[in-house]
Amino acid sequence: MGHNAIVGQSGGPTTVINSSLAGVFSVCKRLGAKTVYGMRHGVQGLLKEDVIDLDGTLRTHADVELLQRTPAMLLGSCRYKLPDAAKEPAVYERLFDILRKYDIGYFFYIGGNDSMDTILKLSDYAAGSDIRFVGVPKTIDNDLCVTDHTPGYGSAAKYIGTTVRELVRDSTIYDLKSVTVVEIMGRNAGWLTAAAALAEDEDCEGAAMICLPEVAFDPEDFVARVGALQSRTPSIVVAVSEGIRVADGRYVAELSDALSVDPFGHKNLTGTARYLCSLLAHRLGTKTRAVELSTLQRCAAHLSSLTDIEEAYRCGGAAAQAAFDGQTGVMIALRRVSDNPYLCVTEPMDIHGIANLEKTVPLDWIDAENYRIRAPFLDYALPLIKGEPSQTYVRGMPEHLTL
Amino acid sequence: MGHNAIVGQSGGPTTVINSSLAGVFSVCKRLGAKTVYGMRHGVQGLLKEDVIDLDGTLRTHADVELLQRTPAMLLGSCRYKLPDAAKEPAVYERLFDILRKYDIGYFFYIGGNDSMDTILKLSDYAAGSDIRFVGVPKTIDNDLCVTDHTPGYGSAAKYIGTTVRELVRDSTIYDLKSVTVVEIMGRNAGWLTAAAALAEDEDCEGAAMICLPEVAFDPEDFVARVGALQSRTPSIVVAVSEGIRVADGRYVAELSDALSVDPFGHKNLTGTARYLCSLLAHRLGTKTRAVELSTLQRCAAHLSSLTDIEEAYRCGGAAAQAAFDGQTGVMIALRRVSDNPYLCVTEPMDIHGIANLEKTVPLDWIDAENYRIRAPFLDYALPLIKGEPSQTYVRGMPEHLTL
Repeated sequence: MGHNAIVGQSGGPTTVINSSLAGVFSVCKRLGAKTVYGMRHGVQGLLKEDVIDLDGTLRTHADVELLQRTPAMLLGSCRYKLPDAAKEPAVYERLFDILRKYDIGYFFYIGGNDSMDTILKLSDYAAGSDIRFVGVPKTIDNDLCVTDHTPGYGSAAKYIGTTVRELVRDSTIYDLKSVTVVEIMGRNAGWLTAAAALAEDEDCEGAAMICLPEVAFDPEDFVARVGALQSRTPSIVVAVSEGIRVADGRYVAELSDALSVDPFGHKNLTGTARYLCSLLAHRLGTKTRAVELSTLQRCAAHLSSLTDIEEAYRCGGAAAQAAFDGQTGVMIALRRVSDNPYLCVTEPMDIHGIANLEKTVPLDWIDAENYRIRAPFLDYALPLIKGEPSQTYVRGMPEHLTL
Repeated sequence: MGHNAIVGQSGGPTTVINSSLAGVFSVCKRLGAKTVYGMRHGVQGLLKEDVIDLDGTLRTHADVELLQRTPAMLLGSCRYKLPDAAKEPAVYERLFDILRKYDIGYFFYIGGNDSMDTILKLSDYAAGSDIRFVGVPKTIDNDLCVTDHTPGYGSAAKYIGTTVRELVRDSTIYDLKSVTVVEIMGRNAGWLTAAAALAEDEDCEGAAMICLPEVAFDPEDFVARVGALQSRTPSIVVAVSEGIRVADGRYVAELSDALSVDPFGHKNLTGTARYLCSLLAHRLGTKTRAVELSTLQRCAAHLSSLTDIEEAYRCGGAAAQAAFDGQTGVMIALRRVSDNPYLCVTEPMDIHGIANLEKTVPLDWIDAENYRIRAPFLDYALPLIKGEPSQTYVRGMPEHLTL
C-alpha cells in the first residue's frame, strides 16, 4: 500500500475547483498521507512525471483558504482522454510505473465528464491493485449524472444571474426599442442558461425570454415573441444558450457561422447571440446588442458562491476519506436531503454510472411555449448560489494563490 | 428664486452614477430644497414633463445607500443633444416654461461630455436668470477634461483589472500555445484599456501586451511580438482597445467588419478582438480566444470601487452645495492633492473648459514599443479602485433599488 497521495485537475476551469484541491490536500494530510503530490496538467503531465509536492505551496492555513478563493487550476489542466487499455497498454504501464515510483496509494482526479472517464479507466485497469482511484466532480455545466449538482455550477449560476440582472438595469435605461441577447455557455445542457432566471426578483424584471438547448428553437416564433414583448416593454433582455438548435438539428450559430471542433469532438460554437441580433434587427427594426459571457462565467471568482466553495471543499475532503476507507472506482456525489433549509450530503458513487453520461434540465422545468423557466428550477438553484465569501483584496484587486 | 431642485442622468451608464444622484438628493434636501424632482430619461423626458418626485422613492437612509450600490440609471437616460438656442429657440422656451412651472431653482445633470454640453447650453441661455445649472461628472471613459478623473472610471477599472487577472488564471492552465485577446471599451481614449495593467502584481503575470488607441497600431509588429512572447510563455493574454487604429487612421475593426454610427456621430465598433484572433491564428497557427467585456464593464456594480462610490456621492453633494452657493455654468471637478496617501478635493469649474473636449492617456505613460503601460499610470489608477462596498445580497443576488 503506497504511502502518498496524488491529485490532478482536468478539463475546463471553474472558480471552485481549487477549493476541491484544498479539500483533498487537507484531508489527505489529516488522514496520514506522507506526501500529497500534484500533477501539473493532469494525466498528460503525470505521463511526463511533471509533479510537485503540494506541501511546498500549501504551507499555512491562510494558503489553503486563499487557494479556495483562487479561480481556475493551481496545477494546470489538460484535455487528454486516456486511450483504451486494450489498444494502448503501454500508456497504462508507464502511468502505473510512475505511481509506484512515487509510492502512490491514493489517486484523485477533479473534473467533469471526460475526467471521470479517466477514473473509470484507471480503476478498471488497476482492479486488484491497492491504489485507490477517486473522482471529485467539477464542472460549471452541471451535466454530471448521479450527483444532485456539481461544484462549480453554483458560482457560475450566481455570476450569470447577477450579470443578467445588471444587464437588465443597464439595457432598460433608454426610452427606445432594444433587445440585448446574452449568450451563455452550454452545448447540450441548459443549466447555465437557466440560471438567467435567477435575475428576476422583486427588484428586477429579469430576462424576458430564456432559450435552452433542451428544446428545439424556432426562429420565426422567437421573432414574433420578441415583437409582442416589445409592444409592451420596449427594452428587453433575452438569454440564450450557445447550443440552441433548430428542429433539423443545426445549431443556430451554424445558420451563419463556421464551426470548429475541439479534441473531444465537441462543436465549438460562436455567434448565436450575434446571429439572433442580426435577425431581430432585420425583422423588427429594433436596436440590438449581443453580449457573450464567454470565459468570464467560469473564472469570475470575485463573485463565487460561498455554498459552492464549501461544497467543493467538502467533495474534495470526502474523496480523500473514501480513498482512505478503501474505496476505489467511485466519484463523490452530492445528494440533496432538503431544499429549504438546504442540506446536501456527500456519498461515493460507482463511476460506471457517471462517466461519459450527460444530465440535462428536466423538460417539465421548462415552459418552452413562453420561453420561461419554471419554479422547481428556482427551488433547485437558489440554495446553490447562496452566500458570499470574504475576499481578500490587495491594492484593490482580489488576491490569488499561484505556484 | 425657485424653491425646488431637479436632477437628470444622461449618456451611458456607470455603476456609480446613482451614487451621484444620491449625493445631489441628500445635500439638496439638507440645504432646504422643498422638492427634488427627477427627470425621467434626461432632458428628453423633461421636454415631455416626465418628472417624478424623488422623495417618494428615497424615503429612508437605507434607500439612499441602496441607490448608491445600484448600477445604471434610476431615472433612465437619453442620448439627446440640445440644438443651438439660436436655431431652435422653441426647445429652450419650452424647457424654461417647464422649469418655471415646477418652481425650479437648481438644475443638475449627471453625465459625460455630451451631457456637459447640455449644462453649457442651458446656463449660457439662462444667463441672467436665477436658475443655477451645475454638472456632475460621470463616465467610465475617464475622458473629461479639467477633472483629475471621472466618477465611474474607478469601478470600471477595478472590474477590468480583476477580470483580466481572472482571465490570466483561466487562460494559462493548459500546456499549449494560446492567445486570449480581451477587447475593452474606449473609442479614442485608452483609460479603460490601460486598466488591464492593474491585473499584474506579485500573484499575477498580468496582460502580456496592452494596446491603446492613443498609439497607431501596426498589425505586423503585433503579430511578431505575440510570436516572440509565445516562444517564452505559450499562453498569453493581450488587452486591446476597441478603438485601436492603423497608421492610415482606419480602425482595426474596420479591416474586416462593417461599422455603424450612433446619434452623436461616434463610430460603433465591434470585432477588434475577433479580427486580431483570426489574424494571429492564421499567421502563428496558435489557438486564440476573443473576449469582449462589452456592457459588463459599465454595469458590474457587484465589483464597484468603494472609493468611486464615495467620490460619486461627494461630487453630487458638491454640485448641490455649489448651486445653493449661487454658482451656475460649472461642473464639479476632482483635483488630486496627493497619490499616496490618496486625497482628492472637489471644486466647481467653468463648464466652457470641459464640454465637448476629450482627455486621452498621456503619451509618456505608454511604452508603445513594448506594448506596456508605465508606472505613473499605476500611481494614478491604484487609489481609484481601492475598497469594496458592503453589498447586500438577497437570495444570493445583489439587491438593487428601482422606481
